[in-house]
Amino acid sequence: MPKEGITTREKDYSQWYLDIVQQAGLADYAEVVRGCIVFKPTGYAIWEMMQRQLDDRIKETGHENAYFPVLIPKSFIMKEAEHVEGFAPELFEVTRIGKEELQDPYIVRPTSETIIGHFYARWIRSYRDLPLLINQWANVMRAEMRTRPFLRTAEFLWQEGHTVHVDEADAERETLMILHDVYADFAEKEMAMPVIRGRKTEKEKFPGALRSYCIEAMMQDGRALQAGTSHNLGQNFARAFGIQYTDQNNTQQYGWTTSWGVSTRLIGALIMVHSDDEGLVLPPRLAPTQVVLVPIYKNDTERSGVMEVVQRLTAEWKGKLRFKVDDRANLTPGYKYNEWELKGVPLRVEIGPKDVEKGSVAVARRDIPGKEGKKFVPQAGLTEYLAGLLEEMQQALFNKALAFRESRTAHVNNYDELKQQIERGFARAYWAGSNEDEKRIQDETRATIRCIPLEQPGVAGRCVYTGKETDQLVIFARAY
Amino acid sequence: MPKEGITTREKDYSQWYLDIVQQAGLADYAEVVRGCIVFKPTGYAIWEMMQRQLDDRIKETGHENAYFPVLIPKSFIMKEAEHVEGFAPELFEVTRIGKEELQDPYIVRPTSETIIGHFYARWIRSYRDLPLLINQWANVMRAEMRTRPFLRTAEFLWQEGHTVHVDEADAERETLMILHDVYADFAEKEMAMPVIRGRKTEKEKFPGALRSYCIEAMMQDGRALQAGTSHNLGQNFARAFGIQYTDQNNTQQYGWTTSWGVSTRLIGALIMVHSDDEGLVLPPRLAPTQVVLVPIYKNDTERSGVMEVVQRLTAEWKGKLRFKVDDRANLTPGYKYNEWELKGVPLRVEIGPKDVEKGSVAVARRDIPGKEGKKFVPQAGLTEYLAGLLEEMQQALFNKALAFRESRTAHVNNYDELKQQIERGFARAYWAGSNEDEKRIQDETRATIRCIPLEQPGVAGRCVYTGKETDQLVIFARAY
Repeated sequence: MPKEGITTREKDYSQWYLDIVQQAGLADYAEVVRGCIVFKPTGYAIWEMMQRQLDDRIKETGHENAYFPVLIPKSFIMKEAEHVEGFAPELFEVTRIGKEELQDPYIVRPTSETIIGHFYARWIRSYRDLPLLINQWANVMRAEMRTRPFLRTAEFLWQEGHTVHVDEADAERETLMILHDVYADFAEKEMAMPVIRGRKTEKEKFPGALRSYCIEAMMQDGRALQAGTSHNLGQNFARAFGIQYTDQNNTQQYGWTTSWGVSTRLIGALIMVHSDDEGLVLPPRLAPTQVVLVPIYKNDTERSGVMEVVQRLTAEWKGKLRFKVDDRANLTPGYKYNEWELKGVPLRVEIGPKDVEKGSVAVARRDIPGKEGKKFVPQAGLTEYLAGLLEEMQQALFNKALAFRESRTAHVNNYDELKQQIERGFARAYWAGSNEDEKRIQDETRATIRCIPLEQPGVAGRCVYTGKETDQLVIFARAY
Repeated sequence: MPKEGITTREKDYSQWYLDIVQQAGLADYAEVVRGCIVFKPTGYAIWEMMQRQLDDRIKETGHENAYFPVLIPKSFIMKEAEHVEGFAPELFEVTRIGKEELQDPYIVRPTSETIIGHFYARWIRSYRDLPLLINQWANVMRAEMRTRPFLRTAEFLWQEGHTVHVDEADAERETLMILHDVYADFAEKEMAMPVIRGRKTEKEKFPGALRSYCIEAMMQDGRALQAGTSHNLGQNFARAFGIQYTDQNNTQQYGWTTSWGVSTRLIGALIMVHSDDEGLVLPPRLAPTQVVLVPIYKNDTERSGVMEVVQRLTAEWKGKLRFKVDDRANLTPGYKYNEWELKGVPLRVEIGPKDVEKGSVAVARRDIPGKEGKKFVPQAGLTEYLAGLLEEMQQALFNKALAFRESRTAHVNNYDELKQQIERGFARAYWAGSNEDEKRIQDETRATIRCIPLEQPGVAGRCVYTGKETDQLVIFARAY
């Protein structure tokens, strides 16, 4: 049943998203600071869950965290030709400190390749210092034309990995390892969000990169969202900043660098992949609160009986489940159910006087609405039951999202089919066109090549636009 | 034995500190961005340990994290009279986005009372919304005349709590709870750093606060370091930003706000309280690596015997100790010992062929130099032994720092005694002087009143400067 204050997805998907963000209390617009939002506690808690999981994976794969200045000399950004072209229009510039006008202004980092490159050049001497594997958690700023909470904000939070390697092969290995073992694994296991791993076309790659890789996910309106990128930067930044090392033959060499990042945009993806017309739906592994327990009673006698059971049950949950007991007075159970559904808590446990008698509780699953998702289960063994149900729900959300993506993905053989399919979702197509062809398609259809999937059929076909034979398959879609 | 590259504390305490920071690889100067440093992995890892502990305490006391924009409209900072006076000379100002000159510039947050006040005014409606208890982890910027890594940097990292309450009593309770249960408890239990809890004088309080509280610690040169502050802001910011609520009688009231913060300056305090002429000394609870294991062997046969024991021992340590095995080739054990001493790892375990035979290992404690700190202990029960030793060392570091502070603190009865004592450490003195008197003492001695300790003797005495009778005792010291 759709909720008050939430536009249905069918009626207006874009408004539905904004309604969820507002009604679940995830973010607030910050009109007073152009393009910015406030990450409210409920929204920020999701980011903290993501950070913890990503940080573990980043460290397990051998990286350490560090922190570099938020300001970058403007001249730095000018040193890499493609990089400056990509970022110049979006830069926030510091030109004054106190009353002093600066001769050489600073920019607020839009990304940190340049400032980090400057320090790497100073730190690296020999091949023994490589690979250098560092990650940074930081805020960055890029001016945006239109603001959409989490998806497009002038300031956003992210992690940016920056590594240096002795040769192209090692840099490429790192770039792909991050894509697979960190980003795709995180997206699919923790976010329950299936992703396509692929390479960006020349037109879509990161300004200054040799090759850019990405993971792309499908939202419920069939549009794509780039959920993470990993770049092999070649020797471009090494040459621009003088990142050199002495190799085993005592010869000076330029290093090979990579960079990779995911951001608070993932919160937007999480919302759009799983939520429904009743509010937010969170996958259990990233839900700050996994279980909410609502005690039900009409008088003090009932209350004391119910709360005794609540105490006993929750004592066992500590350290095993992330839970809240909603014992607020003056609010009906129905009001509370509604609020926790809106906020996406995966499981709701209800205990009333009858449950106390019977030694049972009612458990409702957020992803299965109404009576179908509600079961009466014994109090004995409840902790394990709930833990199992959370895992089941995690898997169910992934399966549902995958089935949805499959149902909205189709192979297209010509431009007309392409145009029709991108109204529905992802179009899989052979591609041998030029940058200009790609640009023309974008102008005509608002769809772009999201990626060249790493998994390729190895069978040739005809390019959807030029008709040339090719064995390269790509994914076209409209994107966030 | 003092190490190469480290000036002794006796010779030049200030240079000793800089040497430790550089030799242990904690930070690097970022001359290209005025007043900034790079937090290198070894230094940043200490901050991550601190963050985790502080964040737990902040959440356990009922606060949630959120995130507000890094930029603040310059006009906001002008709204609270004392606040603008305190911060105006230090502000980094954004006046341009891309090619657009801004009519209304932004400042990079020096602290977030104003921007957060703006949103609180929007969010709070009724007494039911209070208390509002929010914390933010963020970077902030304030121009500094001279840079000292961690202690004084233009950009630093911190947490800033911002809360709103129905009345003065509740705001005061929060302010003091944070001081005691979060900051002082963290400093003493985790940092092993004894602190004096006190209130700031009118002259020293936060710009815009009603009352400022602080914890003050003594460094090894006898100078004070303010390690955390907690402010009762009264209704000053509530009036400036219109933070109002409807009370139970349906009357509009201004809220009472607090703010409180600790920063990466704590890394500087940690270094200065415990380290020695051989390098960094880290208290075990905040040491990113608590135990380093150095295998010793001369050939492959010895190596395989030693490494078998290493595997067995470390398998048991997982999840119980934070450890590293230093199995680097081509480096002597002596070189490795030196490096880990420099980096402050609390315990070193050595295993050679003879230890394999005897079923023993050698364990060296970082805080007790030379043979006295080294013991041969059986491999059986080693995990528990090490865990116990870490706790023992944690307590020993606290006791040592406390004894040092006591030995460098003295009661002074007149201005001459005061001048002498501040050369050594903390001067405890009765005080009934004016703001001007305080200023004059600062000009003449470079010492300030660090705080009015919360624990007072309750016995009157004569003011160290004016001779007036008073029951207020204060602490004078030179400070970082």
